Amino acid sequence: MKYCYSIDIGGTSIKYSLFDLSGRLLRSWTLRTNRAENGKYIVSDIAITLLADMDSESIQKEELIGIGLGVAGTVTANGLVTVAPNLGWRNYPVREKLQQLTGIPVFVLNDANAAALGEYAALTEPVHSMVFITLGTGVGGGVIVDGNVIAGCQGAGGEIGHLHVEDRETQPCGCGGSGCLEQYSSATGVVRICRKFLLRDKEKRSVLHGQQELTARTIFDAWKDGDEVAAKSVECMASYLGKACAMVACVVDPDLFVLGGGVANAGAPLLAAVEHYFFKYAYAGCKNNRFQLAILGEDAGMYGAARFVLQNKNQ
Amino acid sequence: MKYCYSIDIGGTSIKYSLFDLSGRLLRSWTLRTNRAENGKYIVSDIAITLLADMDSESIQKEELIGIGLGVAGTVTANGLVTVAPNLGWRNYPVREKLQQLTGIPVFVLNDANAAALGEYAALTEPVHSMVFITLGTGVGGGVIVDGNVIAGCQGAGGEIGHLHVEDRETQPCGCGGSGCLEQYSSATGVVRICRKFLLRDKEKRSVLHGQQELTARTIFDAWKDGDEVAAKSVECMASYLGKACAMVACVVDPDLFVLGGGVANAGAPLLAAVEHYFFKYAYAGCKNNRFQLAILGEDAGMYGAARFVLQNKNQ
Repeated sequence: MKYCYSIDIGGTSIKYSLFDLSGRLLRSWTLRTNRAENGKYIVSDIAITLLADMDSESIQKEELIGIGLGVAGTVTANGLVTVAPNLGWRNYPVREKLQQLTGIPVFVLNDANAAALGEYAALTEPVHSMVFITLGTGVGGGVIVDGNVIAGCQGAGGEIGHLHVEDRETQPCGCGGSGCLEQYSSATGVVRICRKFLLRDKEKRSVLHGQQELTARTIFDAWKDGDEVAAKSVECMASYLGKACAMVACVVDPDLFVLGGGVANAGAPLLAAVEHYFFKYAYAGCKNNRFQLAILGEDAGMYGAARFVLQNKNQ
Repeated sequence: MKYCYSIDIGGTSIKYSLFDLSGRLLRSWTLRTNRAENGKYIVSDIAITLLADMDSESIQKEELIGIGLGVAGTVTANGLVTVAPNLGWRNYPVREKLQQLTGIPVFVLNDANAAALGEYAALTEPVHSMVFITLGTGVGGGVIVDGNVIAGCQGAGGEIGHLHVEDRETQPCGCGGSGCLEQYSSATGVVRICRKFLLRDKEKRSVLHGQQELTARTIFDAWKDGDEVAAKSVECMASYLGKACAMVACVVDPDLFVLGGGVANAGAPLLAAVEHYFFKYAYAGCKNNRFQLAILGEDAGMYGAARFVLQNKNQ
C-alpha cells in the first residue's frame, strides 16, 4: 500500500492527514502549533509526530510517496518559505529541513494555493482554469491553469488580496501598501467599511448602531434583514471584489471563480453581488466566466496539499 | 524535410513565413489583407497563397506539420475568432475553414499571444513565466507560464490593455469600458494625456504647444530633451503601466515582464520609469520580477505562431 501525508500548518494548529494514492482521506488529526522562538520547533514537532504515526500504524518509509505541506506564508518553487508572519519564519528552508528529518520527499505550497487545488480536485465538472479566492481575516487566493497552481517566481502568484483596487485609500494595508483588495473584501475589511458608513450615516436607522461587537457575520445578517447601512457595506465590499475578479480575468481569463473562506458563508446573495460587479468592470470579451461557492471549507488545504504530492511525486 | 507555415493576419497586411521544425525561418513575404465584405475572402486568399507556394516550392502536404495563425482578435482554444474588429470577423471558425481548404492542421492564437510566444522563444536566458505587453495604438499582451500561452476560457487571457486602472476616467475606452490601461499607456493614450496637460498647463513652456501633429514619438522625443509637459505625460503613462504590472504580478507573479510595440522604442528610460512605478504599487512580496525590452519587433508574432504549431503538433 502507498500513502502520502498532508499537513496544513496554521498559526494556531497543525492539521495532519493521511491519504491513499487515489486521493482518498484515510484519517486526520490536529495538534497545537508551537510558535516559540520564531517557530523553530515546528518542523521537528512535525517529524516526531509523523515518525510516531508511521511506527504505531506500521507504515514503512517506502510506502510513503511524500509529505504535502500547506504553509500560511509565501513559498517559492523550491520549498523555501520567504515570509510566514504567523509562524515566525523568514527565509526558512522548510522542505529541506523536513526531508532531512524524515527521509521522505516533501512538497511545500502556500495554504491558499493548497486550498485552491483542493477545491479544484473537488469540482464535479472539470474546468481548464480556476481562480480560488478565500475571504477570511485577510483575502488569499490561488490560480490554477490546466490542473497546476501558478505559484509565481517568488510565491506571489494568486495574491489576489493585494491587488491594488483603490487609489484614494489613506489607511495602510497589512502588507505595507495601500488600497489593496484585502482592505475592503475581507472579514476585517467589511467591518472597517461598515464603521465608516455608521459614522457618516449617523442619522440612518441601523441595527448595527451601537452594536457591541461588529463582525462580518453581524453585518451580513443585518444585510439579509434589509438593514440599509449593512447593505451599503456589503455592496461596497462586493464591488471591490468584482472589480478585482475583472482584473484577474484580463490576465488569466479563468473558466471559474470559486469563493471560499468565512465571509463566503454569506452564500448565494453575496455571490450574485460579486458577479454583478464583475460584469460591470470586466473586459467586453468576458462573458463566460462563472462564479461559485467553495465546498470543502477548512478541509480544502488538506485535500489540496495531498493532491500536490500526487501531482509532483515524480519530480 | 518537415515544415510549418506561420501567418500573421493584420488589418492591413498578411505576413506569410515558412519555418523548419527547429524553428528556423526559411523565408517570409507579405500580401495585402482583403477586408471586403467583413473579411470573407481572407481565408480563401490564404489557402490559395499557401497552395500556390507549396506547388512552386515542391512542398508536399505530408511535409507540413501545420499552419500557425496569429489573428488580431479574440480567439478561443478551439480556434474560433469571437471578435476581430479590424478584419470584420465575428464568431468566425477560422481554424475549421482553413483546415477544410488546405487539408493541413491549423493552430490559431491571438496576435499578441503569438508575439509573446515569439519573444519567449527568443530569450537568451530561459524563464518559467513571462508576461509580454505590446504598447502600440492599443495595449495588448500575452501571459506565458511554463512555455505555454494562457489563452483563457474565451481568449481574454493577457488582455492587459483592459485592466481597470482608473476609477475617475470619464471618457470611454474602445472596448466600451472606462479606465482601461489602454486609455493611458498606448500610443494614442499618451497623446491623449499630453493634450490634457497642454490644455491645463497653458502657461508652461513646452515644445509641444501648438505642434501640428502630436504623436507618441514627438512626446517621447521632447521628454528626452527635458520638456516638462512631455515628462509629466510620460510619467503618467508609465505610472499606469507600472500599476497594471503590479496587478498582473499579484495574479501570476512572472519572472519577467517584456515590453514591446512602437511605444517601447522609447527604450531604457521608459523601462526604468515603468519599473519604478511597478515597485511602488507591487505587493511587498514582489522583489524579483524583472523588466526588459522586446527584441523581435514586428516579427515576434511570426516566430510565435510557428512555435505554437511546434508546441501543439501532436494534439
